[in-house]
Amino acid sequence: MQILVLGGDGYLGWPTALHLSALGHEVAVNDNFARRGYDEEMGVESLIPIATLEQRLEAWTELTGRKIRSYVGDLVDPAFVHQMVRDFQPDTVVHFGEQRAAPYSMIDQAHAVYTQTNNVVGNLNVMYAIGDIDRDIHLVKLGTMGEYGQPNIDIEEGWLEVEHKGRKDRMVYPKRPGSFYHCSKVHDSVNLEFGCRIWGMRVTDLNQGVVYGAETEQTKLDPRLATRFDYDGVFGTVLNRFIIQAVLGHPLTVYGNGSQTRGLINIVDTVECIRIASENPADRGEFRVFNQMTESKSINEIAETVANEFPGEATIEHVDNPRVEIYDHYYNVVHTALESLGLKPTLLSTTLIDHLFDVVVRHKERVDLTAVMPTVRWADTASELPRTARELAKT
Amino acid sequence: MQILVLGGDGYLGWPTALHLSALGHEVAVNDNFARRGYDEEMGVESLIPIATLEQRLEAWTELTGRKIRSYVGDLVDPAFVHQMVRDFQPDTVVHFGEQRAAPYSMIDQAHAVYTQTNNVVGNLNVMYAIGDIDRDIHLVKLGTMGEYGQPNIDIEEGWLEVEHKGRKDRMVYPKRPGSFYHCSKVHDSVNLEFGCRIWGMRVTDLNQGVVYGAETEQTKLDPRLATRFDYDGVFGTVLNRFIIQAVLGHPLTVYGNGSQTRGLINIVDTVECIRIASENPADRGEFRVFNQMTESKSINEIAETVANEFPGEATIEHVDNPRVEIYDHYYNVVHTALESLGLKPTLLSTTLIDHLFDVVVRHKERVDLTAVMPTVRWADTASELPRTARELAKT
Repeated sequence: MQILVLGGDGYLGWPTALHLSALGHEVAVNDNFARRGYDEEMGVESLIPIATLEQRLEAWTELTGRKIRSYVGDLVDPAFVHQMVRDFQPDTVVHFGEQRAAPYSMIDQAHAVYTQTNNVVGNLNVMYAIGDIDRDIHLVKLGTMGEYGQPNIDIEEGWLEVEHKGRKDRMVYPKRPGSFYHCSKVHDSVNLEFGCRIWGMRVTDLNQGVVYGAETEQTKLDPRLATRFDYDGVFGTVLNRFIIQAVLGHPLTVYGNGSQTRGLINIVDTVECIRIASENPADRGEFRVFNQMTESKSINEIAETVANEFPGEATIEHVDNPRVEIYDHYYNVVHTALESLGLKPTLLSTTLIDHLFDVVVRHKERVDLTAVMPTVRWADTASELPRTARELAKT
Repeated sequence: MQILVLGGDGYLGWPTALHLSALGHEVAVNDNFARRGYDEEMGVESLIPIATLEQRLEAWTELTGRKIRSYVGDLVDPAFVHQMVRDFQPDTVVHFGEQRAAPYSMIDQAHAVYTQTNNVVGNLNVMYAIGDIDRDIHLVKLGTMGEYGQPNIDIEEGWLEVEHKGRKDRMVYPKRPGSFYHCSKVHDSVNLEFGCRIWGMRVTDLNQGVVYGAETEQTKLDPRLATRFDYDGVFGTVLNRFIIQAVLGHPLTVYGNGSQTRGLINIVDTVECIRIASENPADRGEFRVFNQMTESKSINEIAETVANEFPGEATIEHVDNPRVEIYDHYYNVVHTALESLGLKPTLLSTTLIDHLFDVVVRHKERVDLTAVMPTVRWADTASELPRTARELAKT
């Protein structure tokens, strides 16, 4: 298949491109390097050093003989998107190319507006390119479990059979997103479901859980193929942060009482989910939703798992929750669709955690502990911008 | 009360400002005159001539001694919005200031992106201004019945009690919007519901039906106070279009089989609904939704009502439906909240239709029949732009 991976230079887009290329698909990546730019803006860096996209692509060809094409440009530019889709003629477009951090979207007005316009307009441009050029192109779009919020009923896969006053309908699952970033993903889903109705688009919307893990079969082949590993308060995700805190002897910082529950997925399952979705396209006019996660754990459970597994001493500290969310809530997610198409889940295990300890120890000298704590508060309209390590060192 | 009406130069914003001012509220209007600009772009005009905002405001003071302040500027400019809200210190912000035509949003990529960014960013800026300056300000936000689509269950007022696998929750009502414009209103609602949770905003989201009618108690006091009356294929709404077609001896053009049903509301009820919502604010943290419509009618029923009432001969013609929608569908809308707060509905009547015939006859020479037919097709990614009457005359 011809597969175009948007955001193909990012944490997940890059390993996905490699996984698909390794399996024999013709792959191209697109990126505008916005993610590398956020690092500059925030004064932080990936724990694992990453090569440039050019170096990455060269290394891949050198090691495997396979070629991945690249299209450098911004998805908010409609002419660029149109030209890229017309040029590459993909069967599938995998869309990772959005601003993907909830705290980043909550920094202030400018970051909220940037996140929503960047994500919604980019996605609309992709939709229009497909609508114009070839409506058979299957769009595999990344969303997030955070779109659903914390409902008191089971979280179904995007659609809900509703019975109300003796009548029935199959309706889009009601969403209650947890940040302006999560809202932007809901907006995308609304636009895409509409696109399926009016243009007969083929769409798979993947509501992904929190991803953890540092490498896949391909990224570990060579340091130049490594993907990024974020641990800072804005782009870092919870499990990675706990691992780093344990290794550095810092208390594991749990936000609030820690009973809030998240869906999780290992990075090796993410790339496999994208393969499965791509190789089993949605029907014409179908807005198909998969919950891309393999298990649920509360923040306390994640912290305890990491603390128990850590060979040294690790303490847990509860800090003010920067987010607005509810505790001790019901959380039961249906996630059978991808498994019924062949996904074999890699669940969180002591082996995996031990491996992450190793990764962090290897790059320990690169850790900037001052970047780990949250600086962006949901209840504020303008949060304190994370300062760079250099600025903090001065104070 | 201090009430700031965003989009206060438009079809409904202007009569609302007058209604609230007449009742003794301190009113200010904001506009960027985008709506007048769309007329230029499309080469069409309001059937009823309208004065400039400056002339309107002067006439109102001259006739009543009351003063309405004006803030000219664009809601997508965050500094402008912030300054305006800080300067006027409203108790209530009534937000009509969005691009509001479904066909306009479906012209092509550029119009879809414009509609969504203009509406979503403007609304985010209003939210941030309220979040920054005074979270007690009540935001009365205009949405549309077209956000709901055509569900097979009753359309409740924004929230739905869901029972699923033996568990219950009160969830936002699932939406299935009918155009990129309608999608933009869903996006606004998602952002606003989130704003209520994180900032404790007071929001009333009004899902308004198709508005018909040409004047209110205040706009008819003087020709300089008149509000616009659109009948073209992009901004005109169905009832107004049928009236004009009848008067000009043109067949009443029903899109598709005509069984599709719409919620309707008279313009005099719209302004009264806004008063009721403003004078009965939502609680802190409450995302309150009212269905602002008073009756449901199929397109066929509306056409037949107009044809039957017309003193001359009026025929009905079914034309290809430019929209993608379903026919012979269930449509039952709950709209009791505004009535329970005091709204006395003005239902569609022969008197009202006769009055509209009079209005059209009075301005008959201004009608451009070539502008009436639909030119924007939902299934296309780039619809034929409506040509100006002048261009059409050449062909």
